[in-house]
Amino acid sequence: MQRTDYPATGAWDSSQPAGRRQFLSLGERAVALDVGVTLRDVVIAYETWGTLNAERSNAILVCHAWTGDSHVAGAADEGHPTPGWWEGLVGPGLAIDTNEWFVVCSNVLGGCQGTTGPASIHPDDGVPYGSRFPVITVRDMVRAQVRLADHLEVRRWHSVIGGSMGGMQALEWAITYPDRVASLAVIGTCAQSTAQQIAWGAIGRRAIRLDPKWRGGDYYDAAIGDGPWEGLAIARMVAQVTFRSDNVFTDRFGRDLADMDAENNGIGLWDKFEVERYLDHHGDRLIRRFDANSYLLIGKAMDLHDVARGRGGLEKAMARITAPTLAMGISSDILYPVYQQRHICELVARNGVRAQYAEISSPHGHDAFLIDLPQVGAPLTKLLTSL
Amino acid sequence: MQRTDYPATGAWDSSQPAGRRQFLSLGERAVALDVGVTLRDVVIAYETWGTLNAERSNAILVCHAWTGDSHVAGAADEGHPTPGWWEGLVGPGLAIDTNEWFVVCSNVLGGCQGTTGPASIHPDDGVPYGSRFPVITVRDMVRAQVRLADHLEVRRWHSVIGGSMGGMQALEWAITYPDRVASLAVIGTCAQSTAQQIAWGAIGRRAIRLDPKWRGGDYYDAAIGDGPWEGLAIARMVAQVTFRSDNVFTDRFGRDLADMDAENNGIGLWDKFEVERYLDHHGDRLIRRFDANSYLLIGKAMDLHDVARGRGGLEKAMARITAPTLAMGISSDILYPVYQQRHICELVARNGVRAQYAEISSPHGHDAFLIDLPQVGAPLTKLLTSL
Repeated sequence: MQRTDYPATGAWDSSQPAGRRQFLSLGERAVALDVGVTLRDVVIAYETWGTLNAERSNAILVCHAWTGDSHVAGAADEGHPTPGWWEGLVGPGLAIDTNEWFVVCSNVLGGCQGTTGPASIHPDDGVPYGSRFPVITVRDMVRAQVRLADHLEVRRWHSVIGGSMGGMQALEWAITYPDRVASLAVIGTCAQSTAQQIAWGAIGRRAIRLDPKWRGGDYYDAAIGDGPWEGLAIARMVAQVTFRSDNVFTDRFGRDLADMDAENNGIGLWDKFEVERYLDHHGDRLIRRFDANSYLLIGKAMDLHDVARGRGGLEKAMARITAPTLAMGISSDILYPVYQQRHICELVARNGVRAQYAEISSPHGHDAFLIDLPQVGAPLTKLLTSL
Repeated sequence: MQRTDYPATGAWDSSQPAGRRQFLSLGERAVALDVGVTLRDVVIAYETWGTLNAERSNAILVCHAWTGDSHVAGAADEGHPTPGWWEGLVGPGLAIDTNEWFVVCSNVLGGCQGTTGPASIHPDDGVPYGSRFPVITVRDMVRAQVRLADHLEVRRWHSVIGGSMGGMQALEWAITYPDRVASLAVIGTCAQSTAQQIAWGAIGRRAIRLDPKWRGGDYYDAAIGDGPWEGLAIARMVAQVTFRSDNVFTDRFGRDLADMDAENNGIGLWDKFEVERYLDHHGDRLIRRFDANSYLLIGKAMDLHDVARGRGGLEKAMARITAPTLAMGISSDILYPVYQQRHICELVARNGVRAQYAEISSPHGHDAFLIDLPQVGAPLTKLLTSL
């Protein structure tokens, strides 16, 4: 499967400024990681919308999900291979109104959209980290964001908001730095990844590892179109099915065939159904913009996500949250079922902190937090303006 | 990953008789397949329990699922790498009482437990079929079973029974040969595979194809332990997660770690959670007993399963069923949700045929049809004795 139109390795690490994206270089101020090592010369890519007020009290941190980036709103451009993932939710007059709020989003540590990750150059030898990049946790991602908050001189976020892995980061913010989070909003996420979530993640990792072109993670010298695309595409397929729902797949694709070879009555072993073409399309889009090692590491970070770790248990960890909390579930979410967001609410409320559960009624599954924006936006606006 | 204790390729095709297993050789009487080719010298491996009565009216055909085989009941032995998959349900005095019924089960066409499949020797050249083995449909599997029924001189089955892919075969029997099926019992199955089911199947196929040791399907000359085990194991992992349920995984494994390397605080990229060890264990067991090409082909057959194909639509196809029908769903089945079995019931009843829906209340997910035997057995017994 030679696909010569694919990017050269490293193309995703387009670390030149473009659009609004800015870069914070931490230089020698190393970031200490949960795994027990430190990273130096870390760069954090971020974007902002709106204006920080004089009291520096109107800042909102938005945290992105697995394959997201700092580009919450705006068109695709050189530095952002995709349009804003919350376009329509964040902007002037929108649910997160940038006439009122100063919105910040940074690419996560370990990512591949400007923030230091496995495709970045190791400061010691000028060669990409590759397999040498350490395992990252959600807490490590937050540690990098703290540096950014300090740089922006935002002492306290008016709100920290995120869906999916973004919600994991938001929870860690509210638990680790309760005095820096005035309100918390999480969507389609959990306080601790479950065994089933870990299982899905593990399958994706194994698929990438199986790809001979992954080469243990050191593939950045590969020729154009010769990276571990197939492994990454399979990993993405697994995720994509869990991000959607049975009935939406049935409505959209049914049992339609994508290609029908008359020779074998349309039942060739590799003839595709429409749903396979759809998954291919998503895999294809991802491998053009995302690094397989970042996918591996960020997926592992989600599996390792457990707010209870080192904090004397789940209840004690959640008891650290002092921020009024909005937890939103999605009715058709098979990956982060609604009981998980209800549980977050329950644990926060147990300590007398204001906690609201809101359910997005949607057929779209987990991805509804990126799709059903009016239902996402209304409770968010209410939270933001209620403080 | 060198695993020298794995079987040599072809070890699954243990075509020597053992235990009760018998073999029917079709010889030159070729089987015509949906894909448009014929297979000759087909061998069908089967087992029987109980005694066929003089009227030949007490025969029950049990159809097995994806990685099942003809060994419905009995201990593991040379010809049967696993104990009977419905041990406890089929036997003297059990729900399918072999004091009363003559029970037959055959390994499906394309399989690897004695019936002709891709690991079998091609009659033309003495080399395993490998990539030359044609795509098989569920209808083709039934075509082979018809030959077996004729051989046994069973004109009409008292019942055709199956769970999962076994249920697909049972449906095809009742639709294609209504005069040969006196009653029908299907569990955790569907009349048409959905887009989501196809998606899961496609991911598994891609994982096997990605394994360089699969070699396009022609790997039977591989050294011991050098087959496409990793690809097959990943494919099995996908299936295994869909066969179970979120809450059972949480109860059994939670977030426990299987190996904890003190060096990296238990968060190494390839350190495993317990749920991963469990999936590994299942993958490991499968690759010792199952052929990757059979896994591919049988999975494809399930994705191609559509009783409506070539029959003027679903309603017309289902209207051919004249057998009193029992359709059973499993409350926690995420792979074949209960709406699919309810729909089967509804379609059969629409034509004035007796149809009963029964639900297995179980936390175990799809696999409950192999686990919660008392709940499976009671409605089956009722059906069998009601005619």
